[in-house]
Amino acid sequence: MSSPFNFDLIIKNGVVVTAADETECDIGVKDGAVVCLARNLPIPEGCKVIDAEGGYITPGGVDSHVHIGQSASNARSADDWTTGTRGALGGGTTTVVAFAVQAKGKKVMPAVEAYYELADGKAMCDYSFHAIITDPTEEVVRDEVPKLVDFGITSVKVYMTYPLMKLDDKQMLDILAAARQQGITTMVHAENSEIINWMTDRLLKQGMTEVWHHGTSRPQLVEDEATNRALALAEVVDAPMLLVHVSAKEATRAIRKSQTRGMPIYGETCPHYALLTAEKMEAPGFEGAKCVCAPPIRSDPLDNEGIWEGLSNGTFTVFSSDHAPYNYHDEKGKQASLYRQPNVPADRQFKNTPNGLPGICTRTPLLWSYGVLKGRISRQRFVELNSSNAAKLYGMYPKKGTIQPGSDADFTIFRSDAARKPSIITQDRLHHGADYTPYEGMEVLDWPRLVILRGQVVYDDETNTVLAEAGTGQWIKRGLSTLPGPRGTSKAWMNGFDPHKI
Amino acid sequence: MSSPFNFDLIIKNGVVVTAADETECDIGVKDGAVVCLARNLPIPEGCKVIDAEGGYITPGGVDSHVHIGQSASNARSADDWTTGTRGALGGGTTTVVAFAVQAKGKKVMPAVEAYYELADGKAMCDYSFHAIITDPTEEVVRDEVPKLVDFGITSVKVYMTYPLMKLDDKQMLDILAAARQQGITTMVHAENSEIINWMTDRLLKQGMTEVWHHGTSRPQLVEDEATNRALALAEVVDAPMLLVHVSAKEATRAIRKSQTRGMPIYGETCPHYALLTAEKMEAPGFEGAKCVCAPPIRSDPLDNEGIWEGLSNGTFTVFSSDHAPYNYHDEKGKQASLYRQPNVPADRQFKNTPNGLPGICTRTPLLWSYGVLKGRISRQRFVELNSSNAAKLYGMYPKKGTIQPGSDADFTIFRSDAARKPSIITQDRLHHGADYTPYEGMEVLDWPRLVILRGQVVYDDETNTVLAEAGTGQWIKRGLSTLPGPRGTSKAWMNGFDPHKI
Amino acid sequence: MSSPFNFDLIIKNGVVVTAADETECDIGVKDGAVVCLARNLPIPEGCKVIDAEGGYITPGGVDSHVHIGQSASNARSADDWTTGTRGALGGGTTTVVAFAVQAKGKKVMPAVEAYYELADGKAMCDYSFHAIITDPTEEVVRDEVPKLVDFGITSVKVYMTYPLMKLDDKQMLDILAAARQQGITTMVHAENSEIINWMTDRLLKQGMTEVWHHGTSRPQLVEDEATNRALALAEVVDAPMLLVHVSAKEATRAIRKSQTRGMPIYGETCPHYALLTAEKMEAPGFEGAKCVCAPPIRSDPLDNEGIWEGLSNGTFTVFSSDHAPYNYHDEKGKQASLYRQPNVPADRQFKNTPNGLPGICTRTPLLWSYGVLKGRISRQRFVELNSSNAAKLYGMYPKKGTIQPGSDADFTIFRSDAARKPSIITQDRLHHGADYTPYEGMEVLDWPRLVILRGQVVYDDETNTVLAEAGTGQWIKRGLSTLPGPRGTSKAWMNGFDPHKI
Amino acid sequence: MSSPFNFDLIIKNGVVVTAADETECDIGVKDGAVVCLARNLPIPEGCKVIDAEGGYITPGGVDSHVHIGQSASNARSADDWTTGTRGALGGGTTTVVAFAVQAKGKKVMPAVEAYYELADGKAMCDYSFHAIITDPTEEVVRDEVPKLVDFGITSVKVYMTYPLMKLDDKQMLDILAAARQQGITTMVHAENSEIINWMTDRLLKQGMTEVWHHGTSRPQLVEDEATNRALALAEVVDAPMLLVHVSAKEATRAIRKSQTRGMPIYGETCPHYALLTAEKMEAPGFEGAKCVCAPPIRSDPLDNEGIWEGLSNGTFTVFSSDHAPYNYHDEKGKQASLYRQPNVPADRQFKNTPNGLPGICTRTPLLWSYGVLKGRISRQRFVELNSSNAAKLYGMYPKKGTIQPGSDADFTIFRSDAARKPSIITQDRLHHGADYTPYEGMEVLDWPRLVILRGQVVYDDETNTVLAEAGTGQWIKRGLSTLPGPRGTSKAWMNGFDPHKI
Ligand SMILES: [Zn+2]
Ligand SMILES: [Zn+2]
Ligand SMILES: [Zn+2]
Ligand SMILES: [Zn+2]
Ligand SMILES: [Zn+2]
Ligand SMILES: [Zn+2]
Ligand SMILES: [Zn+2]
Ligand SMILES: [Zn+2]
Repeated sequence: MSSPFNFDLIIKNGVVVTAADETECDIGVKDGAVVCLARNLPIPEGCKVIDAEGGYITPGGVDSHVHIGQSASNARSADDWTTGTRGALGGGTTTVVAFAVQAKGKKVMPAVEAYYELADGKAMCDYSFHAIITDPTEEVVRDEVPKLVDFGITSVKVYMTYPLMKLDDKQMLDILAAARQQGITTMVHAENSEIINWMTDRLLKQGMTEVWHHGTSRPQLVEDEATNRALALAEVVDAPMLLVHVSAKEATRAIRKSQTRGMPIYGETCPHYALLTAEKMEAPGFEGAKCVCAPPIRSDPLDNEGIWEGLSNGTFTVFSSDHAPYNYHDEKGKQASLYRQPNVPADRQFKNTPNGLPGICTRTPLLWSYGVLKGRISRQRFVELNSSNAAKLYGMYPKKGTIQPGSDADFTIFRSDAARKPSIITQDRLHHGADYTPYEGMEVLDWPRLVILRGQVVYDDETNTVLAEAGTGQWIKRGLSTLPGPRGTSKAWMNGFDPHKI
Repeated sequence: MSSPFNFDLIIKNGVVVTAADETECDIGVKDGAVVCLARNLPIPEGCKVIDAEGGYITPGGVDSHVHIGQSASNARSADDWTTGTRGALGGGTTTVVAFAVQAKGKKVMPAVEAYYELADGKAMCDYSFHAIITDPTEEVVRDEVPKLVDFGITSVKVYMTYPLMKLDDKQMLDILAAARQQGITTMVHAENSEIINWMTDRLLKQGMTEVWHHGTSRPQLVEDEATNRALALAEVVDAPMLLVHVSAKEATRAIRKSQTRGMPIYGETCPHYALLTAEKMEAPGFEGAKCVCAPPIRSDPLDNEGIWEGLSNGTFTVFSSDHAPYNYHDEKGKQASLYRQPNVPADRQFKNTPNGLPGICTRTPLLWSYGVLKGRISRQRFVELNSSNAAKLYGMYPKKGTIQPGSDADFTIFRSDAARKPSIITQDRLHHGADYTPYEGMEVLDWPRLVILRGQVVYDDETNTVLAEAGTGQWIKRGLSTLPGPRGTSKAWMNGFDPHKI
Repeated sequence: MSSPFNFDLIIKNGVVVTAADETECDIGVKDGAVVCLARNLPIPEGCKVIDAEGGYITPGGVDSHVHIGQSASNARSADDWTTGTRGALGGGTTTVVAFAVQAKGKKVMPAVEAYYELADGKAMCDYSFHAIITDPTEEVVRDEVPKLVDFGITSVKVYMTYPLMKLDDKQMLDILAAARQQGITTMVHAENSEIINWMTDRLLKQGMTEVWHHGTSRPQLVEDEATNRALALAEVVDAPMLLVHVSAKEATRAIRKSQTRGMPIYGETCPHYALLTAEKMEAPGFEGAKCVCAPPIRSDPLDNEGIWEGLSNGTFTVFSSDHAPYNYHDEKGKQASLYRQPNVPADRQFKNTPNGLPGICTRTPLLWSYGVLKGRISRQRFVELNSSNAAKLYGMYPKKGTIQPGSDADFTIFRSDAARKPSIITQDRLHHGADYTPYEGMEVLDWPRLVILRGQVVYDDETNTVLAEAGTGQWIKRGLSTLPGPRGTSKAWMNGFDPHKI
Repeated sequence: MSSPFNFDLIIKNGVVVTAADETECDIGVKDGAVVCLARNLPIPEGCKVIDAEGGYITPGGVDSHVHIGQSASNARSADDWTTGTRGALGGGTTTVVAFAVQAKGKKVMPAVEAYYELADGKAMCDYSFHAIITDPTEEVVRDEVPKLVDFGITSVKVYMTYPLMKLDDKQMLDILAAARQQGITTMVHAENSEIINWMTDRLLKQGMTEVWHHGTSRPQLVEDEATNRALALAEVVDAPMLLVHVSAKEATRAIRKSQTRGMPIYGETCPHYALLTAEKMEAPGFEGAKCVCAPPIRSDPLDNEGIWEGLSNGTFTVFSSDHAPYNYHDEKGKQASLYRQPNVPADRQFKNTPNGLPGICTRTPLLWSYGVLKGRISRQRFVELNSSNAAKLYGMYPKKGTIQPGSDADFTIFRSDAARKPSIITQDRLHHGADYTPYEGMEVLDWPRLVILRGQVVYDDETNTVLAEAGTGQWIKRGLSTLPGPRGTSKAWMNGFDPHKI
C-alpha cells in the first residue's frame, strides 16, 4: 500500500519557523517535498533522519535580487552560475532570482533565452529571472510582457538611471500599465540620473575625483527624488511596485507613507545599507572601490538605523543581497578603468569604477545575526524577509518560502540559542567567485548549520562544504504574486478614466 | 500500537489558512488538538471526518475584548456567561477574553476570583480575563500584578476616563512600569475625561441633550489627545501598550507613527467603527441609544475609511467586538435612566445612556465579508486580526490562534468562493442574550458554515444551531506575549535612567 | 528755500496699511514719490489733496505673473500692452511683471528686447519682465543670465512641461545654479509633462475628449510629482525657487514642508485656484473652455480650502493673476482649434484648447473681498500677497510694495468698513481686452475706490474710469531680492562639494 | 504757530527698520512720540539731534516674559523692579511684561494690585503684567477675567506643572473659553507634571540626584506631551494660545503643524534654548545650578538647530528672556536648598534647585548677533521677534513695537555693518541684579549702541551706562491683540455646539 507517510527524509528535533508561526514538530519529506508536519513521526525503513538539534528550521533562503553571469558595460562579473549559486547555498540561500537584460533596440524574449542558457546545467540552487526592460517599444509592451508571463517570468525591472538602461517617465508608465494588466510586479532602481550626471560633471571640473566621491555624486536626494517620482507613477496607474535596494531613511519613510495609504508598494533593502557606512569608501588607495555600489552606502549611522527601522516595522518586503560581484584584483573587474586609463591615478577615478558588491553568501547569516539575534526583528519577520515575501511577491509560493505540506523541502537550519557558534566572516571561507567580501572581519553570531534543497543536504557548516553538484539547481516557472495587490483607488482615475482599458 | 496518526477527527477537503500561509491539506485531530497536517490522510477506524467542501479553514476566532456578565455602574449586562459565549460560537468565535474589574479601594485578585466564578461552569467557549486596574496602589503594583501573571492573567487594562475607573498619568506610569517588568501588555481606553466633562456641562447648559449629543460631547480630539498622551506615557517607560477600540483616522495615524518608529504599540478597532456612522444615533425617539458607545461612532465616512486603512496596512493588531450588551427594552438596560428620571423626555438624556453595543456574534462574519470578500484585506490578514494576533499578544499562542501540530483544534470554516451563502443580519438569528443588533438588516456575503472547538462541532450554520453545552468552555491560563516587545530605545532613558530598576 | 515739505499731493484721512503696520496718518507726495508720513500735514499752496474718506490706503498692487502681448503657439493673446495694463489699473494693480520668452535655438537678450519693444510707449502701469529660458545652452547660462541681471531682469522662469518650453532636470540644475550665483530667483511651472502626455494619449484612445477632460489629463499628482522634483533640484544647489500657480493642497503642503526646513522656497497661487472649482469646465458645449488653464482648476472644494490655508499661514509668498487671456469668441483665441479642425465637434477638443484665463482686473478685489473682508487673512497679509512680497522678491522694493519715504506714490485705496460698496463682477465693467471673465456674476464686497500711480489718480471707481494714458507706464530696472535667501545648508554639499564653484 | 514739525528730537542718519520695511529716513519726535518719518527733516531750534551713524534703528525691545520681583516658593528673586528694568534698558529692551500671580484660594485682582505696587515708582522701562491664574473658580472665570481686561491686562498665563500653579485640563478649558470670549490670549507653560513627578521619584530612589538630573527628570516628551495636550484644549474652544519657552524641536514642530492648519497658535522661545546645551548643567560641584530652568536646556545640538529653524520659519512669534533670576551666591537664591538641607551634598540636590536663569540684559544682543548677523534671520524677522509681535499679541501696538507716526519714540540702535563692535559678555558689564550670567564669556558681534525710551536716551554703550531714573518707566494699559485670531473652524464645534455660548 502506498502510504502518504512513506517518507524518505524526516527532520526531527527542530523548531519549525514560518512567517507567522513556530512549532516544535517533525517534518516528513518525500521526493523533495514536505508532505507532513506532525510530532513524533514514525521513521519508515530506509528513511533518512536529520537531527535539527533543537535548532530553528527556516524555509530555504530566497535571494530575489542577484546579478549572476551578468556583466556590466564596463566590467565582467566575478560569478558564473556555478560559483554564484555555490556561494548562495553556502550562505543559506536555496533559491535566487537573477536578471535577464533586454538590450536597447532588441527584443526581450531572446535575451531571456540567452540568460536562461547561461544558467542551464550550471546552477547549484533553484533559480528564476526578472526581465530588465530597457526599451519598452509598443511591441514589447503589447506582446512581450504577456509572453514573459506565459514563460514564467512574472516581474520586470526598470532603471531610472544609467544611459544604457534608463527609461523616461512615459516609458515607465507604459511598463507599469502593462505589468498591472498582466498582474505582475515592476521593480524600480530609483535614482535621478540627471542629478547624478550634473553633479558628476561638476565634481570632475572641481577635481574631486577620489573614489569616495562616488558617494558625493549621488547624495540622498538623488534617491529620494526618484523614489517619490516612481511612487507617483505607480499611483497614476495604481500598479504594484517594488523599490529595490533602498539605501537610506528618507526613501524608507516615503515608501512607508505610500503603504500607510494602502498603495501596493513594496520595498527592498540590502545588508550593506543596514550594516556599512560610507567610510568604507575612504580606504587608502583604490581599496574603497570594493564598496562602490549604487545607491552608495550612506555616511550617517542614522541611515543604518532608518534601514533597521524599516526592516523591523514592515516597510521592507524583501531583504536581498543585490549581489553584483566584480573581482578587485581583476583588470576586467573593479580595476578595469585603471587598466583602460593608466595615466589617471588609481584613486582618482570614482566615475569609472564598476558599481556593485558581492553579498550572496552573507545575506542570510547577517540578517539572522544582526536582525534576530541582536533583537531587532523576530524570527517570523526574518522568514518574511529572507524567504516568504520574495516567494509570494514573485509567484513562487507556496513551492518556496514556507514549510507546509506541498512545499519544496528547502530548509536553512540554525543552531538553538544555547548552541550558537559565532564566527568571523573572512573571504577564504565563502563559496562565491568574487575575490573579496565587504564584510571581511565582521562577526556573525551564528551561521546556517545545515542547508537543504529539495530534501538534499547541500551545505554543512561543520566542514564548511557545499555538497551540491552543478546543474542540480532547477529553473522555476513563476506564477503571479499572492501578496495584496492594487485596489483601484488611485486618484488619477477620477472622472472615469481607466489607464488599463487600452 | 499507539500511532501518532490515530486521529479521532479529520478535516478534509479544505484550504488551511493561517496568518502567513495557505495550503490545501487535511487536518488530523486527536483529543481536541491538531496533531498532523498532510494531504490524503488515511482515515482510521472510528475516526470522524468533516468535509470542508473546498472552503477556508481558519483558526477559531479570538475575541479579545468582550464584556460578559460585567454590569456597569448604571446598567445591567444583557449577557451572562452562557448567552454571551453562545453568541460567540454562533458567530465563529471560540475564545473570548473578558474583564475582571478591581473596585477602587479593593484588591485585584479577589475581583479576579469573583469574575472567575461567574464564568465557571457556564461558558460554552474557551475564555480568559484581562484585569482592569482602577486603583494602582503601591501594593497592587508591587504584589498583585506579579500575582496576576502567576495566575495566568497577562494583561491589564486601564481607563483614562470614567470617574470609577480613571487613572491619572502618574498611576498609568506605575502600571506601565510594572507591566513591562512582568512582560505583560497594558490595554488603554484613551479618552480625555476632562474634555468630555467640560463639554457635557456646556451641552447641558445649552439644552443640547438629545441622544446623539453623546457624540458631540466626545469629539475626535478627545480620543486624539488621550491617544497621544498614552503613547507618550508608554514611551517614558518603553512599555508595550494596546490602544483599545480606536474609532477614527487621526488616532489610527498616531498609532501608526509610533509603530513606524519601532515602539511596541498595538492597536485595536471594532466592527462598528469600520462600518457604522453617527447618523445611527440620530434615529427618532430613544432608538439612537442602541448605538451609543464610547468612543462614539464617528460621523464622517472618511473615518470608516481610515479604520479600514489601518486594518489593511497593519496598524491594527486585533479586531475585537467590544461586546458590551445592554438590552434596549430593559429598565435596567439602555433605558435605565428613563426609569430613573421619568420626567425627562426619553430623547433628552444622552448623558445617562449606558455606553455599549452587542457585537460578539457579528464580528467575524463582518470582517470576513467586508474585509476579505470585499477585497480590503487578505485572508492572511483576516487570520491575524480575527485570531492570531490576539492569541500571540495575550499569551495564548500557539494553543490558540493558529493551525499547526499542537494547537487546539479550533476552526472557523467558511464556504469556498463558489459556494458563498449571503444572508441578512437579523436579531432573531443571533445567539447572544441582547435584544437587538446594531447591524439589523445589513448583508454579509458569507457566514461561518461550521465552528469547531477543540475538535467538537459547536455551531452548524445549516440549521443555525449552537451545539455546545454550558460549561464546556475552558478557562485559559495565559502566558507572556510572543509579539515583538520593547527594545529599550526610549529617549526618556537617556542619562542612564532606567525606569524599571526599582 | 526748498523745503522737504513742499508736497504736490497729500493723501489725508486714511489708514496707511503696510505689510506689518497700520497707522492713521497723512502721506505727503512730491514728484510721484512718498516723502513724508505724519499726521496733520500742513497743505502747501497748490498742493492737491485726496481724501481717503477713512478708508485703507494700501501699496499699489503688484501682479508679478501676467502674460501680456505674449501669444501661445496655438493662439493669440487677447491683450496688448495698452489693454492689459488698463485692466490692471482698473483692478488696483499699478505694477505688472510679464514674460519675455527665449525661443529654442535663439538667444535670450534679443527676445527680451523684442518684448520690451512691445510694451514701450504702450503701457499704462509700471512694468518689468521675467525671462523665460527654454534653451539653457552653456552660453546662455554663462553669459546671458548675467546680462539679464545687468539689464535689470532678476528672475527667470522655466517650465517642466510643454514641448516648446520644457527643460529636463539637468537643464534646470544649470539654470538654478546660474541663478543662485547671480542672486536671482527661478520661477518654475511644475507639471510632469510625461504623465500628461501619457494620460492624454490614453484619454484620446478611450474617446474621452470633452473639454473638461483637460482636468482628467492633469490630475493632482502631475503637479505634486513635479513640485517634489523641483524642490529636490532646488535643494541640490540650495537655490531660491518660486513655484508658480500652485493649484491644490498637496503641492501647498510640500512647499510648506520645505519652508519649515528653512529652504529658500517661495510659493505663488492665483484667484481661480482659491475660488473656482472644476465644474466650471463642465459647462455645456464649448463654454467650459473659458476655464481651461494649467494646472487645471481642481474639483474638490477641500483644495480651495487648502489654497486659502496656504494664503493664510504664509506658505504663499505672492498672489498673482496668471493673466493669460484668449478671447472666447475668437478664431485665433479659445476657439482656434474649432476653426482648425472644423470636423471635430466643439466639445470634443480638450487637447487643443489654449490654456489660460484672464484675471488681471479681478485679482486684487477678490483677495481683498474673499481674503480680508471674509476674515481669512489680515490686511497686513493682504499687502504682503498683493504687493510687498512680489516687490521684494523681484527686486523692486522699496520703490514698489510699500508706503514709506522714498517709495513710489502708488496706492490702492479701499473704502472704510462702514462705507464698503459691494458689487457684482461683470465683463462689461472690466477694462482688460479679453471678451469674458471667469468670475462673471460673482460678488465682491468692495472694489478699489481710487488707484494712484506715482502720484496720479489712474482709476476712479465712482465712474469706473481708467484715467491713465498709454505710455505713462514706466519700465522698472529691477535689483536683487531682499527676501531671505539661501543659507548654504543643502545636504547635497556634503563632502565639500560646492555646486556654484564653477 | 503750532507746527506738526516742531520736533524736540530728530534721529538722523539711520536705517529705520520695522517688521516689514526698511528705509533710510529721519525720525521726528515730539513729546516722546514719533510724529514724522521723512528724509532731510529740517531741525527746529532747540531740537536735539541724534546721529544714528548709518546704523539700524529698530523699535525698542519688548521682552514679554520676565519675572521681576516675583519670588518662587523656594527662593527669592535677584531682581526688584529697579534692577530688573535697569538690566532691560542696558540690553536694548524698553518694555517688559512681567507676571502677577494669583494665589490659590485668593482672588486675582488684589494680586494684580499688589504686583502693580511693587513696580510703581521703581521701574526704569515701560511695563505691564500678565495675570497668572492658579485657581480658576467660577467667580474668577466669570468676573475677574473681564475685570482684568478692563484694567488693561489682556493676557493670562496658566501652568500645566508645579503643585502651586498647575491647572487640570478642565480648568484650562474654563480659562481658555473665558479668554476667548474676552478676546485675550492664554499663555501656557506646557510640561506634564505627572511624568516629572514620577521620574523624579524614580531618580531619587536610584540615587541619581546630581544637579544635571534636573534634565533627566524632564525629558522632551514631558514637553511634547503637554504641548500636544494644550493644543488639543485650545482647539476644543478655538482659542488663541501662546506656548511659552519652547525648548526643543518636537514641540516646535507641533506648534508649526497647528499653525499650518490655521489655528491661532503662537510660540515663544528664549535665548538659552537656541544657544546653550545641557552640558552647562554638568559643571563641577553646584555650578550647574546656574543653568537649571524649566523646561531644561536640551542636550542635543539638533534641538538648538530646531529652535533656530522655528525662529527663522515663523513658528515662533516672540523671543523672550524668561528672565527668572536667582543669585548663585545666595542662601535664599540658587543655594537655598543647600542651606535648608546642609547634610545633603551640594551636587546631589537637583530636585530643590530653584528653576530659572537671568537673561533680560542679553536677549536682544544675542538675537541680533546670532540671528541677524550670523545670517539666520532677517532684520525684519528680528523686529518681529524682538518687539513687534509681542506688542501686537499683547495689545500694546502701535504704541510699542514699531516706528511710525503715533508710536512711542522707543528705539534700539545698532551699529552699521561696517562699524560693528564685537564684545564678550561678562557679568560685570551687565546691569541686572543677578550675580551671574549663563552667557559668561560668549561673544556678541554688536551690542545696542543707543537705547531710547519715549525720546530719552536711556542707555549709551560708549560708556555702558544706563541713564534712566527709577520711576520713569510707565505702566501700560493694554488693549486686545491685533494678530490674526480664531476663525471658528474647530471641529469640536460640529453639531452646532458653541463652547462660548454660556
Ligand atoms: Zn539597481
Ligand atoms: Zn542590482
Ligand atoms: Zn473602553
Ligand atoms: Zn470595552
Ligand atoms: Zn505656467
Ligand atoms: Zn503663466
Ligand atoms: Zn514657565
Ligand atoms: Zn517664566
